Amino acid sequence: MSPNGLPPDRLLPADPATRDVARRIYRSVQDQPIISPHGHVPPEWLAQDLPFKDPTTLLLSPDHYIFRMLHAAGVPLGELGVGGAELDEAGSRRAWAHLCRHWDLFLGTPVRYWLEDQLVDIFGVTERLSEATADASYDRIAEVIAGDNFRPRALMDRFGITVLATTDDPCDDLSHHAALAADDSFTPRVIPTFRPDKYLEPGRADFAESVTRLGEVSGEDTGDYAGYLRALEARRRYFVEHGAVSSDHSHVDVQTLTLDDGEASQIYAAALGGTATEQESTALRRHMLGQMARMATDDGLVMTLHPGSYRNHHGPTLAAHGPDTGHDIPVGVEFTKGLADLLGRYGTAEGFQLVLFTLDETVFSREIAPLAGFYPSVYAGAPWWFLDAPRAIGRYRAAVTETVGFYRTSGFIDDTRAFCSIPARHDMSRRVDAGYLAGLVVEHQFEEEDALRIATDLVTTIPQKAFKL
Amino acid sequence: MSPNGLPPDRLLPADPATRDVARRIYRSVQDQPIISPHGHVPPEWLAQDLPFKDPTTLLLSPDHYIFRMLHAAGVPLGELGVGGAELDEAGSRRAWAHLCRHWDLFLGTPVRYWLEDQLVDIFGVTERLSEATADASYDRIAEVIAGDNFRPRALMDRFGITVLATTDDPCDDLSHHAALAADDSFTPRVIPTFRPDKYLEPGRADFAESVTRLGEVSGEDTGDYAGYLRALEARRRYFVEHGAVSSDHSHVDVQTLTLDDGEASQIYAAALGGTATEQESTALRRHMLGQMARMATDDGLVMTLHPGSYRNHHGPTLAAHGPDTGHDIPVGVEFTKGLADLLGRYGTAEGFQLVLFTLDETVFSREIAPLAGFYPSVYAGAPWWFLDAPRAIGRYRAAVTETVGFYRTSGFIDDTRAFCSIPARHDMSRRVDAGYLAGLVVEHQFEEEDALRIATDLVTTIPQKAFKL
Amino acid sequence: MSPNGLPPDRLLPADPATRDVARRIYRSVQDQPIISPHGHVPPEWLAQDLPFKDPTTLLLSPDHYIFRMLHAAGVPLGELGVGGAELDEAGSRRAWAHLCRHWDLFLGTPVRYWLEDQLVDIFGVTERLSEATADASYDRIAEVIAGDNFRPRALMDRFGITVLATTDDPCDDLSHHAALAADDSFTPRVIPTFRPDKYLEPGRADFAESVTRLGEVSGEDTGDYAGYLRALEARRRYFVEHGAVSSDHSHVDVQTLTLDDGEASQIYAAALGGTATEQESTALRRHMLGQMARMATDDGLVMTLHPGSYRNHHGPTLAAHGPDTGHDIPVGVEFTKGLADLLGRYGTAEGFQLVLFTLDETVFSREIAPLAGFYPSVYAGAPWWFLDAPRAIGRYRAAVTETVGFYRTSGFIDDTRAFCSIPARHDMSRRVDAGYLAGLVVEHQFEEEDALRIATDLVTTIPQKAFKL
Repeated sequence: MSPNGLPPDRLLPADPATRDVARRIYRSVQDQPIISPHGHVPPEWLAQDLPFKDPTTLLLSPDHYIFRMLHAAGVPLGELGVGGAELDEAGSRRAWAHLCRHWDLFLGTPVRYWLEDQLVDIFGVTERLSEATADASYDRIAEVIAGDNFRPRALMDRFGITVLATTDDPCDDLSHHAALAADDSFTPRVIPTFRPDKYLEPGRADFAESVTRLGEVSGEDTGDYAGYLRALEARRRYFVEHGAVSSDHSHVDVQTLTLDDGEASQIYAAALGGTATEQESTALRRHMLGQMARMATDDGLVMTLHPGSYRNHHGPTLAAHGPDTGHDIPVGVEFTKGLADLLGRYGTAEGFQLVLFTLDETVFSREIAPLAGFYPSVYAGAPWWFLDAPRAIGRYRAAVTETVGFYRTSGFIDDTRAFCSIPARHDMSRRVDAGYLAGLVVEHQFEEEDALRIATDLVTTIPQKAFKL
Repeated sequence: MSPNGLPPDRLLPADPATRDVARRIYRSVQDQPIISPHGHVPPEWLAQDLPFKDPTTLLLSPDHYIFRMLHAAGVPLGELGVGGAELDEAGSRRAWAHLCRHWDLFLGTPVRYWLEDQLVDIFGVTERLSEATADASYDRIAEVIAGDNFRPRALMDRFGITVLATTDDPCDDLSHHAALAADDSFTPRVIPTFRPDKYLEPGRADFAESVTRLGEVSGEDTGDYAGYLRALEARRRYFVEHGAVSSDHSHVDVQTLTLDDGEASQIYAAALGGTATEQESTALRRHMLGQMARMATDDGLVMTLHPGSYRNHHGPTLAAHGPDTGHDIPVGVEFTKGLADLLGRYGTAEGFQLVLFTLDETVFSREIAPLAGFYPSVYAGAPWWFLDAPRAIGRYRAAVTETVGFYRTSGFIDDTRAFCSIPARHDMSRRVDAGYLAGLVVEHQFEEEDALRIATDLVTTIPQKAFKL
Repeated sequence: MSPNGLPPDRLLPADPATRDVARRIYRSVQDQPIISPHGHVPPEWLAQDLPFKDPTTLLLSPDHYIFRMLHAAGVPLGELGVGGAELDEAGSRRAWAHLCRHWDLFLGTPVRYWLEDQLVDIFGVTERLSEATADASYDRIAEVIAGDNFRPRALMDRFGITVLATTDDPCDDLSHHAALAADDSFTPRVIPTFRPDKYLEPGRADFAESVTRLGEVSGEDTGDYAGYLRALEARRRYFVEHGAVSSDHSHVDVQTLTLDDGEASQIYAAALGGTATEQESTALRRHMLGQMARMATDDGLVMTLHPGSYRNHHGPTLAAHGPDTGHDIPVGVEFTKGLADLLGRYGTAEGFQLVLFTLDETVFSREIAPLAGFYPSVYAGAPWWFLDAPRAIGRYRAAVTETVGFYRTSGFIDDTRAFCSIPARHDMSRRVDAGYLAGLVVEHQFEEEDALRIATDLVTTIPQKAFKL
């Protein structure tokens, strides 16, 4: 047992010789600072540095990994503080008890692994969660988060996070980021990410409203297609000026095509007027992904793609609790044909970078790695969301490494709004990568010194290069 | 070697520390009774309790896993007693010799593993199958199956099977099930499963004939859509009254949609009249899957889906030997979009349960586990058919556990008509799961006591809950 | 360390007991002759037996596995001698230095493994490649290849290659093969492979030109469909007479259908006239794949399919450097529905053999193994191209073995134009298979004697049977 009571070898390979090597590799990177180039922590937490409200609001309600499983077990989302429902103290305590009572559900999942790591390492809760320990664990966590050393900024320091990217609406004024950047007492980089999905989907009911707002914020007339492009360019520049290094795109597919200006203008006008067909709206969305790439060759933002999520699968839950409430479900995706147009135009453009993420594992060996092994612009993104877990990370490494090695990958991203889980997630990734590297050492694919160098690069130069940090 | 000559550690992980843990986990469940909630054993075997005819009729002719591989090796199906061909004693012996001669073909397959387990454990055949041992092994098996202690009911007892679900036509009178239920001397539950595929496929040539028969049996007029629904409801109730706990559905896809009553009525009438287009027939089939879910919310039958088999791939074999003769070949399937309509309506309905099986491994991590991790109704079904094998089960666990753990899965199903293979199949599953659990213990994802509890639950409460037993 | 300085246990499993077994299995086959039934070595190299020009021309410029990764790292293809660019001595040296400088990129890839094997075992380069060792390693290799014992024929002998299949255009006169066959001093079989892709794709711009040439070479009038068939039949016969055992087909998909003679004739005429629609051209291509199967039932050529590569993904690179320059990217494929027509007609035809390869791993367990486990004609081809690597081969074995064992597979193919990498590739395959077999021994799926027999069969009788050698 380590001083904190967690087994020091967790997630390392079972074979003793491999574990020995893996342990040395892991130890060499375990204390490296955390670079988090993609995630969803609200920037106001850091800007305002307010204390967290209670254990449930901190750990459960914002974490769809947790509450979706409790929902599957029959707990109504409303009782978990999901989708804007405000819980009072008694409600928060009841929600926490739901989690404790269903703790066995999470056996074998990374959710349990991450939360146990936090409970022990951050909150000093060493008794296992259960109905019997629900109140005591709640009280203990509540006591810890009330302390001044548990404010968000103190945690950034304690967690060793040197770069934290948030995900932001193009119309956001980025005032929190500006405030943090202006504060000399706060040294980590907290940088925005340009996430324009809703402004690029002409088929959405709120498209006209969205681009009108985009026009107001940018000072460009988005009444026509040319102004719409200028507005997007302006907001991208604004983000760059506020430290952004990437734009993020999460449409259901990554098909791309290029319309000529006349077609694009016409569909844009039809979309504003509500008369665009579904086919036209889809075409314009696919065209606009290419436009994002074109703009990236000018302003230098790295382009990251997170496709293949069927959003809001359960209509009644959307109606009752809103989006992002645990029922986004993956679908198959296709990159090779889809990106042919975009990569034909910008795939070898100076400075252009494109990081491909997926929820569909089948494309790791079939499409993403082969693309990243030819195009200087393409990087194989780390396993994401449902795949951000020990066995899945192992499958990712096994699927991509033999085609593109380690240096054409993105490095780990935590992609989380569960702030306190960030160290546990990065630690998990470092352990699993150490195990994968150790396996290659023991099978004599390379030397231990190579593995040590790669492990360090995976948490330093590799994400720095992929995200231009 | 164990007393019966089989190595006690078979299928347990190679790493010594992991194997130690796995052995303890396996031993804790190895003698648990067998729950078989989905399979194809003919109920008359148990109701009539007749002796089996000969080794080939018992072990080879009904088992497509075996005879399809012999066919690939060039043995004509007719020589194996497949598809209704009656073999005389000499023919059965020759068929058995074909298997013995080609025994090397099965190296590395679960078919060999299961059959060796049966040969040693049930029949006392310890010499390896080969051309030289064909006659001796045939004679030995023939001698064993002639014994009174080898009647089907005695075997149920010996195998420790407490629940055995059969698969039955909705028009079946279930008299065998009734006879077994009425017999106080026979304690296992032998329960029917409602399998209405051919009554739900308006595109089949025999559809009109099928629903006419359904009308006769149910006493409802299936001449129109409303009567067709009433007839299906009546037969489901009849099955429930005879102990059924589930309905099973095996169409080529699981796409669902909802027609309004007028459309459904019109297509139904066209289908009866032979004038429905392929598109209409497909639409009605997809609509009817939703109707099955609706009915399940009333009568409580668990709904199980086994999609994605391209039936009767080789036309000449179908013509010569009929269906189920080894040439059903998997195709890709899609659940997320396909089930959106059905789950939007019934996904959170009180008491509704839906178990998803697949022959397409790509959906384990991408679709099935994410669905089972949100919808209270959805369970991730065990690996099935071509995937019911040690390495494939390991891949299933690795793919689904990190998203839904163990408690949202179905437990093992053997899905077999090879009655004597049931213990070997469940034993295989228990060994492989013990190995998977041991791996998580050794990597400190949880404690050995957790693994022991999960292993027991996997063969008791987990299938009981998924199948409402 | 072995005498040559390479670790003797490389790629063998980490677990000591499994490694012991694997080592014995590997040693039993390590010195078996090499059968290479599919590859891309130019036959003139052997016929003319000329010395190789320089290290870059031998090892780098013809190897898209290497140069594509350097391109991804930003090195222009022109500087690597790719696509016909002639490098002078200084240019070759610079190209080699690019590889040395980027050697870390290849860590964890089979490319590095194969090249290190060659560097140590063939060239005696034991210092690791790096910017510092670039010149010395270049000089050392240049010295070795200048020796008379490094001519292609001497290497064939040294490598222990007894069968080497090349890949050839149907219009090739096969004079190099004829010369080699006529030379009694040269004992290995160097056999052509009939690769008619461009003559079977009516949608290609050069189709009319291609079939005109086919007519000239065959002496048949390819002005109409009947003559086109006769011409293809004639060229297949010509290849058979020159020792060919297989035809190879690499279209983007493997969909098959049968047109009647009238339709086929009409589309063929339209294709020659440049008026065939894309749909018609595709239909004729799919029909012609069936015609290849029909012809195979007459002339006995084994049919091998290598589908699913999106050729020339990056238009600007195609324009600048031509095809086969590293930007062929895999796409998903489908075999079950696609081959239904072809297998319905020829799947059980006497003597017909069909070997299925894939770049899309999802079909290994889902489609290829189930097909090979029923059809006497179908063999599950070895992992290919991006999948020809240790972890991927392990996944292939795990995915196909449980359904079809070892004896319905093709044996290893190296598929390479990198002549000197052939021994390293076959050695890799033997090591990985030894590891897989050892795992099954240690888990008691069969005995070590079974594994030893399978290992030998995998490099002797299994490829001999699949390719009719």
